Amino acid sequence: MQLRSPDIAAMERRRRAALINSITGFKSANLVGTADADGKSNLAIMSSLLHLGSNPPLLALVLRPDSVERHTLDNLRASGVYTVNHVHADIIGAAHQTAARYPREVSEFAATGLTERWLDGVNAPLVAEANICMVLELREEHHLSINGTQLVIGEIVYLECPDSALRDDGAIDPEIAGTVALSGLDSYHATRRLRRMAYAKPELPPREL
Amino acid sequence: MQLRSPDIAAMERRRRAALINSITGFKSANLVGTADADGKSNLAIMSSLLHLGSNPPLLALVLRPDSVERHTLDNLRASGVYTVNHVHADIIGAAHQTAARYPREVSEFAATGLTERWLDGVNAPLVAEANICMVLELREEHHLSINGTQLVIGEIVYLECPDSALRDDGAIDPEIAGTVALSGLDSYHATRRLRRMAYAKPELPPREL
Repeated sequence: MQLRSPDIAAMERRRRAALINSITGFKSANLVGTADADGKSNLAIMSSLLHLGSNPPLLALVLRPDSVERHTLDNLRASGVYTVNHVHADIIGAAHQTAARYPREVSEFAATGLTERWLDGVNAPLVAEANICMVLELREEHHLSINGTQLVIGEIVYLECPDSALRDDGAIDPEIAGTVALSGLDSYHATRRLRRMAYAKPELPPREL
Repeated sequence: MQLRSPDIAAMERRRRAALINSITGFKSANLVGTADADGKSNLAIMSSLLHLGSNPPLLALVLRPDSVERHTLDNLRASGVYTVNHVHADIIGAAHQTAARYPREVSEFAATGLTERWLDGVNAPLVAEANICMVLELREEHHLSINGTQLVIGEIVYLECPDSALRDDGAIDPEIAGTVALSGLDSYHATRRLRRMAYAKPELPPREL
């Protein structure tokens, strides 16, 4: 199949959304936890988490202010803090269900059966079922005027992962932790490592580790 | 393992980079192709491609101006166009090798054995070996002052994928196309679909398709 701009523009809205949401390849699947000023929790699955830098440890997240993500955006602006929790194979159904348009007074934890876990002094809930989770503090926002989305930048101030998923070089192996990959809007995938590559150098050919 | 801000700040630089680059879960693996005014090609593997919106079809990419990605940034600013090509299992070694710090006069195509493919009127090369590829035109840039990275937003003006990887609903299935997922800085993974979930609605439980 080959498509040019006019073909894409002429597509039926849901078909175009399915196509363009799947065109980047595999995505991360993370649950973002927040709370309002009264400590009422909110949880939303997101595929737009992006590494921005390691020192300081910064991650970016794209939010659509006109969607269910509005609750997340309101909460993290008010509290300045949010959690990110990896989706693994055993919680796919509940994680996906957090995308439903629940009214503001309904917590997606209660609605989906996931369990809130609170750290002292952190006004955002972790997902107790997650193997890998972290707490971020809001650092910077950018309004992307081209389509009204919001880029939210946070610093990781706490992170947690099973010792079994830690590699010798300090990296986390999401495959060992059972973290899933997301494709398009609805497909969740397990992974199988094909190759781990050594640091690339101009004077050496590609080498496997 | 549990780490707080001071623990992360105290880590040795490469261990911290390995950790924070792996903390978001699985990432896309894409080759970004550009050319300078003389038509000299450049190719760089990137894991920071992000869906921004479907109408118009917009993708974002984070570039680090102080790294090898400088050549990509210079080229796409000058030409206004770039290509994105999925990495699949057969080209992992060559794709990873494009991350080496080649001097500006060396094309990563020649250095890695990947093949340039030019479309009429497009001053950026596609990767002939890729199954899924697209052409983007630069639309907007945002400087992220917090750490000096650059968010580049482009519109998809052309895309191509095998008919066999197209689903009935219009989505592309990257698993059928052999697209790999990336974890951390160096691991490439094949995938196996676990579940495909129906559109989530508040009044219905999670349902598989």
